Parts: sequence; structure tokens; C-alpha cells
Amino acid sequence: MTLTTDLTSFLPEPAVIAAQVAAALAEDVGAGDLTAALIPAAQRTRAELITREAATLCGSAWFEMVFKQLDSDCRVSWAAHDGERIAPGQHLCTLEGNTRAVLTGERTAMNYLQMLSGTATRARQFADAVAGLPVRVLDTRKTLPGLRIQQKYAVRCGGCDNHRIGLFDMILIKENHIVAAGSISAALAAARALNADVAIEIEVESLAEMALALEAGAQLILLDNFSLAQLREAVKLNGGRAQLEASGNMNLATIRAVAETGVNRISVGGLTKDVTAVDLSLRVMGG
Amino acid sequence: MTLTTDLTSFLPEPAVIAAQVAAALAEDVGAGDLTAALIPAAQRTRAELITREAATLCGSAWFEMVFKQLDSDCRVSWAAHDGERIAPGQHLCTLEGNTRAVLTGERTAMNYLQMLSGTATRARQFADAVAGLPVRVLDTRKTLPGLRIQQKYAVRCGGCDNHRIGLFDMILIKENHIVAAGSISAALAAARALNADVAIEIEVESLAEMALALEAGAQLILLDNFSLAQLREAVKLNGGRAQLEASGNMNLATIRAVAETGVNRISVGGLTKDVTAVDLSLRVMGG
Amino acid sequence: MTLTTDLTSFLPEPAVIAAQVAAALAEDVGAGDLTAALIPAAQRTRAELITREAATLCGSAWFEMVFKQLDSDCRVSWAAHDGERIAPGQHLCTLEGNTRAVLTGERTAMNYLQMLSGTATRARQFADAVAGLPVRVLDTRKTLPGLRIQQKYAVRCGGCDNHRIGLFDMILIKENHIVAAGSISAALAAARALNADVAIEIEVESLAEMALALEAGAQLILLDNFSLAQLREAVKLNGGRAQLEASGNMNLATIRAVAETGVNRISVGGLTKDVTAVDLSLRVMGG
Amino acid sequence: MTLTTDLTSFLPEPAVIAAQVAAALAEDVGAGDLTAALIPAAQRTRAELITREAATLCGSAWFEMVFKQLDSDCRVSWAAHDGERIAPGQHLCTLEGNTRAVLTGERTAMNYLQMLSGTATRARQFADAVAGLPVRVLDTRKTLPGLRIQQKYAVRCGGCDNHRIGLFDMILIKENHIVAAGSISAALAAARALNADVAIEIEVESLAEMALALEAGAQLILLDNFSLAQLREAVKLNGGRAQLEASGNMNLATIRAVAETGVNRISVGGLTKDVTAVDLSLRVMGG
Amino acid sequence: MTLTTDLTSFLPEPAVIAAQVAAALAEDVGAGDLTAALIPAAQRTRAELITREAATLCGSAWFEMVFKQLDSDCRVSWAAHDGERIAPGQHLCTLEGNTRAVLTGERTAMNYLQMLSGTATRARQFADAVAGLPVRVLDTRKTLPGLRIQQKYAVRCGGCDNHRIGLFDMILIKENHIVAAGSISAALAAARALNADVAIEIEVESLAEMALALEAGAQLILLDNFSLAQLREAVKLNGGRAQLEASGNMNLATIRAVAETGVNRISVGGLTKDVTAVDLSLRVMGG
Amino acid sequence: MTLTTDLTSFLPEPAVIAAQVAAALAEDVGAGDLTAALIPAAQRTRAELITREAATLCGSAWFEMVFKQLDSDCRVSWAAHDGERIAPGQHLCTLEGNTRAVLTGERTAMNYLQMLSGTATRARQFADAVAGLPVRVLDTRKTLPGLRIQQKYAVRCGGCDNHRIGLFDMILIKENHIVAAGSISAALAAARALNADVAIEIEVESLAEMALALEAGAQLILLDNFSLAQLREAVKLNGGRAQLEASGNMNLATIRAVAETGVNRISVGGLTKDVTAVDLSLRVMGG
Repeated sequence: MTLTTDLTSFLPEPAVIAAQVAAALAEDVGAGDLTAALIPAAQRTRAELITREAATLCGSAWFEMVFKQLDSDCRVSWAAHDGERIAPGQHLCTLEGNTRAVLTGERTAMNYLQMLSGTATRARQFADAVAGLPVRVLDTRKTLPGLRIQQKYAVRCGGCDNHRIGLFDMILIKENHIVAAGSISAALAAARALNADVAIEIEVESLAEMALALEAGAQLILLDNFSLAQLREAVKLNGGRAQLEASGNMNLATIRAVAETGVNRISVGGLTKDVTAVDLSLRVMGG
Repeated sequence: MTLTTDLTSFLPEPAVIAAQVAAALAEDVGAGDLTAALIPAAQRTRAELITREAATLCGSAWFEMVFKQLDSDCRVSWAAHDGERIAPGQHLCTLEGNTRAVLTGERTAMNYLQMLSGTATRARQFADAVAGLPVRVLDTRKTLPGLRIQQKYAVRCGGCDNHRIGLFDMILIKENHIVAAGSISAALAAARALNADVAIEIEVESLAEMALALEAGAQLILLDNFSLAQLREAVKLNGGRAQLEASGNMNLATIRAVAETGVNRISVGGLTKDVTAVDLSLRVMGG
Repeated sequence: MTLTTDLTSFLPEPAVIAAQVAAALAEDVGAGDLTAALIPAAQRTRAELITREAATLCGSAWFEMVFKQLDSDCRVSWAAHDGERIAPGQHLCTLEGNTRAVLTGERTAMNYLQMLSGTATRARQFADAVAGLPVRVLDTRKTLPGLRIQQKYAVRCGGCDNHRIGLFDMILIKENHIVAAGSISAALAAARALNADVAIEIEVESLAEMALALEAGAQLILLDNFSLAQLREAVKLNGGRAQLEASGNMNLATIRAVAETGVNRISVGGLTKDVTAVDLSLRVMGG
Repeated sequence: MTLTTDLTSFLPEPAVIAAQVAAALAEDVGAGDLTAALIPAAQRTRAELITREAATLCGSAWFEMVFKQLDSDCRVSWAAHDGERIAPGQHLCTLEGNTRAVLTGERTAMNYLQMLSGTATRARQFADAVAGLPVRVLDTRKTLPGLRIQQKYAVRCGGCDNHRIGLFDMILIKENHIVAAGSISAALAAARALNADVAIEIEVESLAEMALALEAGAQLILLDNFSLAQLREAVKLNGGRAQLEASGNMNLATIRAVAETGVNRISVGGLTKDVTAVDLSLRVMGG
Repeated sequence: MTLTTDLTSFLPEPAVIAAQVAAALAEDVGAGDLTAALIPAAQRTRAELITREAATLCGSAWFEMVFKQLDSDCRVSWAAHDGERIAPGQHLCTLEGNTRAVLTGERTAMNYLQMLSGTATRARQFADAVAGLPVRVLDTRKTLPGLRIQQKYAVRCGGCDNHRIGLFDMILIKENHIVAAGSISAALAAARALNADVAIEIEVESLAEMALALEAGAQLILLDNFSLAQLREAVKLNGGRAQLEASGNMNLATIRAVAETGVNRISVGGLTKDVTAVDLSLRVMGG
Repeated sequence: MTLTTDLTSFLPEPAVIAAQVAAALAEDVGAGDLTAALIPAAQRTRAELITREAATLCGSAWFEMVFKQLDSDCRVSWAAHDGERIAPGQHLCTLEGNTRAVLTGERTAMNYLQMLSGTATRARQFADAVAGLPVRVLDTRKTLPGLRIQQKYAVRCGGCDNHRIGLFDMILIKENHIVAAGSISAALAAARALNADVAIEIEVESLAEMALALEAGAQLILLDNFSLAQLREAVKLNGGRAQLEASGNMNLATIRAVAETGVNRISVGGLTKDVTAVDLSLRVMGG
């Protein structure tokens, strides 16, 4: 059983992808592709997708859906799959369809694939940076509006893990909640009374606060902006009781040192708040 | 009349922003903010937004709409405006509203503001890089799915200009269209027959092709991946007849040299296909 | 801090309620209320809402939204609130608005209020039945299509708790998953590898399976259709290690005995799959 | 010609059912079925649907659509059809499809089928209770928000009839309309002036009011909360002139006596405002 | 009680008009009004609406909603109302609002008002043509896609009446239904068995068919393409038993003669399938 | 290459047509076609579409989509195509499908086809009226709400051209913009600074204003309500510098004279603000 490579279970349902793609096409095509008329209506073409740089592929379902919506007879044959490392010049897929559909859909399809591969590639870099260490690298809710589940899927394709999807699937107690509840222990008790089935995480800003959280039985503690020394101290203080999550301005240069402190989880806003599109190329062969 | 700073005319209609924000909130809040119950329902709070780094602000309408949708009595007082350069530590706005609404909306509001300010900041860097030269820096259709008009607005806030919004508001003749039409002149003639009111741009890949386009009366020519030497030659060959647009892997290091060749326009995919969120901070004061 | 009575934190956002009500009105009003023309357009009226039977109130936000959408000047003054026990004949609210709006909206508003109060009332009966025992009564995903978050809110108003909202906020390993994974321990290990932040519950059908789940470190075990004797045995075997949830055809006659076995949770499909509307009455006073 | 058993004409259009099912799936699946990953992506399974109790089947189109939307290659073979009486243990259908799709869709599909069969079963009980008498049993607008046309279809499957679908397809004059119009005859005259093509029904609360309605030429009279004696008197007074509809707290214990008074129609809010799900079981066979 | 002039009861609900207007604005404004930037953002203006030709006004609610959606502070003061006859040069309303909003919304607002006034004006001509005769002039389902309820409202504003809104609120038995049922009497019997609350109309194409329909107890008969002589014969044959509706290529030149035959109803497809916009003018005063 | 007859490039994407048709069907069918039950559920039929008058066909994709949505097995065989002139009595297509689907969809399908053919036919009359002259006849934004892209397509099918689609794809400077900018030259300069890729048109109301526009380099000038004499003068004054567009109350009687003045474009509001449905007939053959 090789769960870690079975990414399809994280892919949205077909109807969800269809709706996302329809909206993206509406945004680009609007009242019509003014240039399409230059191409004969019945002409068909082949196109080849390659990557110009090393990356981790992600977004093939969206790419393919774009062309299917414009030409239901279109065919896409994939030679690489989501989550796969791809090398410069590598052939990724062949596309065969109505030429107008291929040209009209090209930009929308590429925008999805380049963006999501960009996120998967970045996630892969972080996953590689901590390779061999018993730590999970997690994304955050710092995502692009309207693209969260797509980005969360890309993070998985890059070998990192997903933190909560939104405000609805986990309790994360921050400073304001603690103040309102009166104390760390009161906040934890209140949270437990609210919901027994989601993880309850509490954010602390010092070792002293962390000690209070441990005393109150916290099982998941977010260490906000701790230094490496503080993180090491936190791991020692914890003694394996709670899961510890380091957070705050993580980057590729620092993450391995953070992981080596022994924390269990590291959350990285940069996985999804920044995007660097992967340089892919769709070579359209003509009619 | 100071048109260049009147950015409100590029802002989507209120109903459009409202729909975008509602979708983003649905994505984050889903079936409910599980942690919100820790805060008393009637409690109100003040929060202050500052920037931690130098940037160009963009997205205030989306930021404000998030909180208005969660608490119609919420009030936001802005001390900076879209398109304005902001300095590290600068106070941007004060927010006053129901505490739950502030905490529930914080991430969605910040995601919009940080993303759009990131794009505006990048655009400002490109605009500054060519300061003083008679050239327009333009975005492309390489945008994030679902976020095009927001990103195009951010590009304006950063002092660059918008290329076509989508496939519907301009004709851009590329290689495949030329092949289908038979020749550059046939493609241009066909395009002119199709639509008299939008700009018709034709993409060429060599000086020879450019010469054919000029002969055919092209008024807007996209020079794809020309070297600096080729661009200089193109400007000379053109003799002011057509508008020339340089395109292909533009970045901050190279754009001024490109602009100095004398081209009229430079289109930059990196303005919108990549995003680097600006580091902003919302300090919530508590109940 | 009296969290248990602060139900507003479980209420959907205003925009969500507005959309639900708009859909319900569209369903009832369609192309127009044919009878409304008999009432003068400008006439206003007062109406009084009372309950004809003992119940627990739920749904006031939907009730009020119906009339607000038909007459933005309408005013509703509540004398009772969601989650409150109400007695036969008790005055619940006064409504003042345009007569046509009141008559047109009446049925939709009442359908919401009677349905949700019905669910809250049923939940209150179950909560009362186990009063004093350290057990949570939980709803399930056996809800009416399109009404889940409304029903889950009503369950809260009746003093019971919510199990997972949907397939997205908890892992529940059932027989088919165990078979696919190969064993109970393999299924639990695989689930832990998938997601560290949601509760992982495993369903077992015998004490032997429960023992395997405990060995594999299960923290939340669903005992499917166990007899009272089996439940008692399970509690003993558990020794406080995992949370135990009893499930299967629970009703008001049996639930206290089940609770007395010492299980921690009891899930009750009947809370939401069946609905008995509460008998409320809106007395319209006329023009 | 056996119109009474041809229920397909009351079924919503395919596109309408598809939209209803998509919304229900979105509600349950949200950002993804967290447990699905435990099942291999390509695994297929068979499942068998049986009923555990006697009932009248309804909702097969929704049940089937759920699985089709998750797996377009899924196949459902029905051994029973909407409107059919089914006996405990009876095999209803076989389902063959991708295992993940079957497990992910199971709850949503069952929620539809159990709810609608519940309504059909209740309607069948009412229809049976008046068997042999020349009376129609009708539903009302007391339905679950968002589920009206589904419930109205289920009522038909149970052998009862539909009253108006909403406010748009019939005029029903109630007390407030009469007061506004000035008199029963004025209200009827006004209604006739408004619309000549829909039935005009007038609600009366006494034999005296009924006499006025008859004088004014009413063709359809709703007798609100009349006793059995009053109903008998009303039938006598009517002398076959108008259609008489009895209404008010009808139940299975009383409906036959009501029908025996000779009224033409009996409307029953309980058909649709209350729901008792039928106990069905989907046995998934595994991979 | 002057029901005939109380047109507000036929107006769609505010939320419905809002959604219609939002869609129409999206269609026209799309990614933004490119010309709006020429007007200072804060400038306000007054505009006056007049009619250049005699007409019957209709559509004021849509006109006003357009401007409200673009500028919530906009104010419209009406000097004429829906259903009113207006004379060339007559002042209809004054509009005060943000200049950009006025200019951006002008076309959409005028399109609604000119189209609906066109339909109301045509309806008024037909209503006037049969003035004094006891006949109703009815519209049909021959409407413009997406505009049916707006056009049906305009027909009312012009003094004509509405036939069924759609396929859902009346039974109209045509030739194919008769053939399928086997005979006119079988079709009528089947229809009565299906639904007791909506009007059942049957279309006949000869006096012989009409006689069969009368024998079968038809209460509403559509005489398709009968000559004037045939219509007179039909009225005589009918002897007041059923309501008779003449139909087929009615126009202003022929309708009075048709009405004088004594039929009760005349349905006119031309009321809504053709549109002649009324010539209105919005004079914008400037900043 | 015969671009003028390749109308498919102006047709909306399939998903767009599907959404438009679904909305139109919802409007007509609503809660169900009450008469459909008279037809056996499994019966199939053939129907033949003919035209009763000379016209230009337009709308076949919408017509066909209606029946496909009601019966996915339905087949339509076209003997005529969009843009084709059709003669009275001409056979247009044969339709084969489920009888209920054919009867339920007939009106919606015909409404689309008759309306769009009406617009195409009118456009063809205008195109014919200026045959042989070097002028384009253009539509305007005076369209029916919600039907703009359909009507713009019909205008193309009739051999005329499209002016801007909406406010988003061209700049049209009117009197108010000029006043706000201060002068014609200032307005043109400001417009050019705003957007370099769309046509900039300026409306003038006298020869004097036109002279100022020419001086300011205007390339596209709208001559509002110029007399024939003024138009001739304008063409002379222009000397081929700008494109001149005549506008204002154009009709079939006057357009050729206008075209003969030598203007380059004539815009005609009547192409789309008025609609005269073409008389088509769908003969359903029965079961």
C-alpha cells in the first residue's frame, strides 16, 4: 500500500473541477475569442506539452478539462502525472483536438498547469529540504482567494501536508481567543467543550505560555516565531507530550535547521501565498 | 486633471467585488469558524493594519468588503490608498467591528490585500525601472485563474498598463493564425475584415517577418523573443510606422535595456503569473 | 463564561442565510403570489407568532430574513430566542410590515421555523434523557439534502452536539476501508499518515475488533449496533483509553440505558433524518 | 391508458435533478472525502440496496444521479421502481462502480432515497386510508425549504395528489384577503378579475361563510378546521355545487371519517412537513 | 377598490429584479467601463428622463435598480408611473447620482425601460382596440428567452391580461395530446384526473371538434385559426357553456372584429414575440 | 478563404449556450409541464421545422440545445444553416426524439429561433440596402437585457457587423466626457493615455466639433444626427483621415442615401432594440 503517491484521493470531484474551469474560461473568453475566426472551423491540430525547467507536475485534470469543455472530442495523452518530478525538455502530454479549441483554451489551461506546478515544485523543495527528518511540512490558510483547494492539492503533489482547509475543520486558539477566555487553560477547556472531533491547536509566544498549555493538556501547540534555541528548549520541555508546530517566516534556507530542533510540524505560509509559475510550453503543430 | 492617479475607474463595480469576497469567505469559513465561539458574541474590537515592508498598496476595497459582509456595522478608516507607496511600519487603516467578525474575516481580507499589493509592488518596480523612457509596461493573460480583473487592477495601481483583458477585446495574430490564413498579409486582411474597432496586433519572430507585417500595414507588432540588437534593428526598420511591443522573459534586470532600444511597449508575464505577497500585519486589540 | 448557551457562534454567516432564504422564496413565490393583489399595495399589518405546543425554539434568523427580503422596512421583535424552551401559547415575536410581504412570506418563514424548532425540540428530548450523565449525544450525516448546516445548528440549539459536518472534516474508517487497508492497524496507520489534524474514528462490530483497534492506538471508536451488555463490556475493556461512541437505532426509550453503560458518545441518526414540525401559529392582524 | 401509474411525468427534468444532487454532494463532500484515500483509486465494487421495512419507493433518479456524478461509468440496475410497494428484505437495486465513488456518495444517495421514500410511504398510508371513497388527498405548501418539488413528486408516488405548487399557480383567498376586499363576494370577484385560468379557492371558517361563498359562485371552498358534523352539514348545504376541501390537523386516525362526510378533497400538512426516513440499507461488497 | 390599476402586485419581488439587473449590468459593463475614467470619480450629476413619443410607461423598477446598484446614494424621483399613458415631451423622472454611475448605467436602464414600455404600449393598443367589449386580450408563451415575467408584467401595464406563465400553471391540450389520449373526451378526462386546480384548456381546429369538446364538458376552448364566420358559429354553438378563446395571427386591424364575434378571450402572440422599443431620452446635465 | 460566411467563430462556446438554454427552460417549464403526462413516457416522435416566410436563419444551436437538454438521445438534422436565406415553405430541419421532450421544448426552442432569425432577417435587409457600397452597417448596445451576445451573433448572421460588445471593449467619448475633460482634444488625449489597444471613438454634433476632433487626431468619429448634407460635408472635410460613423434614427428607407454620402460606418439601433419574430412552424408528427 503506497498511500503517499496516491494523490487522486486529494483531487476535487470532477464536477468541482468542471465548474472551476468554466469560470476561468468565462473570464478569458468572455463574449468570444476575436482571433479564432482566422482558423477554419473544422481544422484539427496536435499539440505537445513540454517543460522548459525542472519541476514537479500538478494540475493535469484542470488542463485537460479546459480543452474538453471547448471540444468534447479532444484527446489528451499524458506521459507524466501529477506529483512526478519532470526534467527540462521532458515531454508531458500530447493534445489532439479542434484547432480553434486548442488555441482558445491554451492560455487558461497553461495558467492552471503553470501555477499549480509552481506550487507543487515549491512544496517539493521544502519536502526535500527536510528529507529524512521526522517532521511534516504544512501549508496554511495564506492562499490565493478562490484557489485554496487547488493549492492544497498542489502542496500534496509536492510531498508536503495540508494544515486545516479553513476555519471549519480545526480549532486554532490564538492570542485573542485566550484573552477572551481568560487564560490558556480556560480557552482549551472551552474549545474541548465545543467540539470533540477536530484537532485543537493553541498558539503560544513563549516557553512560559507553552508550559501553561502543556499543563492544560494541550496536544498540539503552535510555537509562533520561536528562535532555534527556543525551539530546542521547547522540544526538551515538551518531552514528547504534545505535537509541536514551528511557525513564522520559514524559508528554504532555514527549514532544515528548524526541523532538526525536533519539532513535529513546520507550517510555511510561503508555500501558497507566493507563486512562481513553472515554465511550460505548449507547441501547437498547426492544421 | 490627473488621470494617472485616478485608479477608481479601474476598480470593478461594488456588486462584483461583493460576489468575489462572498466566494472567498465561503471557501474559508465553510460550515462555520469553529474557534469563533471562544469570543463573546457581542464583543467589539479595534484592529490596526500596518505594513512590515515597503510596498505599493492595492486591494483596500476587497479588504473592507470582507469585514462589511461579516458585520454590516464594521467601520474601516483608511490612512493610505490603493496605488500609494507605503513604508515599513506605516499605519494603513484602523478597523472597528465585532470581534468575531474581525477574527473570522482576517485571513481572507489579508489574503486579498497581501496578494494584490504584491502584484502592485512588482508592477511599481517595473514602472520605476523604465522611468523617464517613453514606453508602456503591459501585463499579459498569464494570470491566476479567477483573479484576472483583480490582478489587472493591481497592475494599474503599480503604474503599469493593461494589455487586453481576454480573448474578447483585441485581436492578436500568432503563428498558427498566420499559417491558417496563408501569409502575414492575408492574416492581417482577414482580421481587419472581422473587426474594425479593436487593436489588431501581429506576432513576428524575425526582422523579415516584421518587414512583411509593416508592408501589410500592421499598426501594432509583437516582437517575440528578439535580442536587444534585433530590437534596435526593428525600431530602425520601423521608422515610427507601427507600435512595437517587445515580449519574452522580461525581468527587472533587463527591462531598462529593452526600453532603451526604443520599443513602444513591453509586455511582462511575470507581472501576474508570479505572486509575492506583501508582508502586512493586522494587530487586533482585543475586547 | 457560559459557552453552552452562546448559540450564535454556530449560526451561519448572514450572507449564507440570505442565500438560503432567497432560494426558498423563489421556490414558493415563483412568478408571483397570485393572491397578493387582493391586498392594497401600501397596507401594513402586525402579526404575532405564538407556539401551540411545548418546544425548543430554533430558526429565528431564517424567519426574520424571509420578511426582510420581501420588505426591507419590516420589523421583528423577538420575545424568545433560539435554544429557549417555549410553552404552549407563549408569545414568540411580533412582526410589523407590509401586509402583502407578511402574507407572501408567511409560509416560507413558518416552514423554516417549524422544521428547525422540530429538530431542536427532538434534540432537547435526547439531551434531557441523558441529563446528568457524562455523555455527548451527537447527530450524524443522515440529514435532509440541502439542509445540513441548518439542521446541525438546530441540534446545537436543542443541547446536543455535532458529529462531523461532512466527509471533509474527520476520518471515519468503516469496514470497507479496513478491508482495503488489510487490517485495522493498517487502516489506522494509513489514516494517521493522511491527516494529523482531524479526529480519526474507527468503526468496529465486535469486542474482538475493538481490542485490535485499541492495540493499534485508536483514540475514538464507534461501536456499531452493540447490545447493552456488549457496551458495558466494551467500556470495561477500554479502561478509559479511547473515546467510545455507541451507534445504531438509538431512540428516546433506550438512550439513557445506553448512556449508563459509560460510553462517551452516542450518535443518533433520528435527530436529523426524521422531522416533526412544531405547531406554531402566526396570527396576522389585518390592515 | 393508466395515467395514475405513470409517475415519470411528475419527475423534474434531468438537468434539475443534476443540479439538486450537485448541491447535496457539495454539502457533504466539501473540500474532499478525507477517508477515501484508504481505498485504492482504481478499485471497483458492487453494492446491493435492500429495504429493511415495508415502504413505498421514491427517489431512484436522485440516488442514481449521485453515483453518476462521482463516477460516470457507474451502473445501477433497478429491480423496483418509484411508486412501488416494497417489502422488508426486498432487493431494490444493484450498483456497480468505483469503490471510492460508491463510498463517497452512499450517504447523500441514501439521504435522498430514505427521505423521499418516507414521504411516499406516508402518502400511501393516507391514500390507503381513504381507499374506495371519491376523495382526493392533497399535500400543502408546508414543505421542507428547498425540497418542495421533490416532496410533491413523492406525494404522487404515494398515490396522493398535489395541491398548488406555490403561490404562483392558484389563488387561495384567506381571511386577510377577504377583510381587505370587504366581503367574500368582493374578494371572489376581485380574484376572478385578476386571473381566469387558475383555480380560485376560498377559505371559510363557518357554515355561514360557506353559504356566502356559494352565493358568490365559489367553485372551490376550503373548510378550515370544521368538525365532522360541520363537514356533513357543509356537504349537504353544498348540494354538489362547489368542490369542498377539508383541512386542519388531519391524521391517519381521522381521515377516513372525514372522507366519509362526502367532501371532495382533504389537504394534509403532515404529508410533507413531517418526515420519517425509511430504513434502507446499501450493502457494499468490497473491492 | 381599483384593482385594475394596482399593478404593483404583478411586479416581481425586489430580489428578483435585483438579480435581473445585475445580470444585465454584467453583460454591458463586463471588465469595466473603459470610458468612465474621463469623468472625475466624485462628480455628481442630474439627469432628466423624457419620452419623445406617446406611449404607456413600464419598467421603472428596473430602471431605478440599475442606478442603485452602481451608486447606492443615487436618487430617482418619478413623475409618471408604470401603466400610465405618457405624451411626447413629457417629463418622466429626475435622476441624481454619481456621474460615472449615471453614464455607465444609462444604456442598461434605458434598454429595460424602452423595451418594457414598448410591450406595454403595444398591449395598450390592443386593449384600446377592444374597449367596451366583454373580452380579455391575453399574451402567450411566445416571449423573449429570459424576459418572460418582465414581459408578462408589461402586458398587464398595458391593460391586457396574462395567459399561463409557463407549462407549469395550466393544462393546454393540443392536437398531439388528443391523439395520444385517443379522443377529445379521453384527453379531457385524463387531464382532469391529473390536476384539479388549474384551468384545463383544449385546442380545437373545427366546429366539429369544438362540439366534441363541449360534450366532454370542456370549460375553456381554444379556437385555433377560426375565421370570423366560424367564430360567430362557435359562439352560437357554445351557448355560453364554455369560455371561448380565439387565437391565430391576431393584429390591431382584425382584433375588434374578432372580439365582436362574442368570444371571451383572444390570445395574441404579437404582444410579446415582437418588440418595438419606445423612444425615450435621458438628458444628462453634466458635473 | 471565405471568412464572411464562417459564422461559427462568432457563436458562443457550447457551455455558454447550454447555460442560456437551461435558464430559458427553467422559465417555461418551472415545476413541470402539466400537460406532458397525457403523452406516454416512452413515445418517440418526428417533427419537421419549416419557415412560413422568407427570412435569414439564425439560432440553430439554441434550438437544438433545448431538445438535447430534455432528451439526450434526441437527433436534429439540419437542411439549412445560420446565415442562410430561407424561402417560404422551405424545410429547415427534422427533429427526432421523445415526444414529451419535443412538446415540452417546442416553445422555448421556437422562441429562440424565431427571435434570432428575426434579428438576422432585419440585419440582412440593412446589409442588402447598402449592397455594393463601401460601408459597414453596425449594431449598437441597444439590445434586449440578457440577450446581447445572442443578438450580436444574429446581426453577423444577417451580414452586418458588430459595434462594441459592451462598455469594456472600446472607448466612446460622448458629450459629458468632453465637458468633464475640458475639450475635445483633452478628452482624446486622456483616452489615449488610458488605453492603447481599443478603438477610441468620439461623438460630435456639428461640423465644427468634427473639425476639432480631426485636429486632435481622432481616428474614429461618430456623427450624431447629421443631415445628409452635413454628412456629405463631413466626408469632404475629413478627406479620408478618420473613419466616419453616421448615427441616429437610421431605417431601411434612408440608409442607402446615408451610405452614399461616403461615410465608412452606419450604426443602427433598430437592428437590436426592435424584434420581429420570423414565422416558423414546427410540425410534430405524433407518436
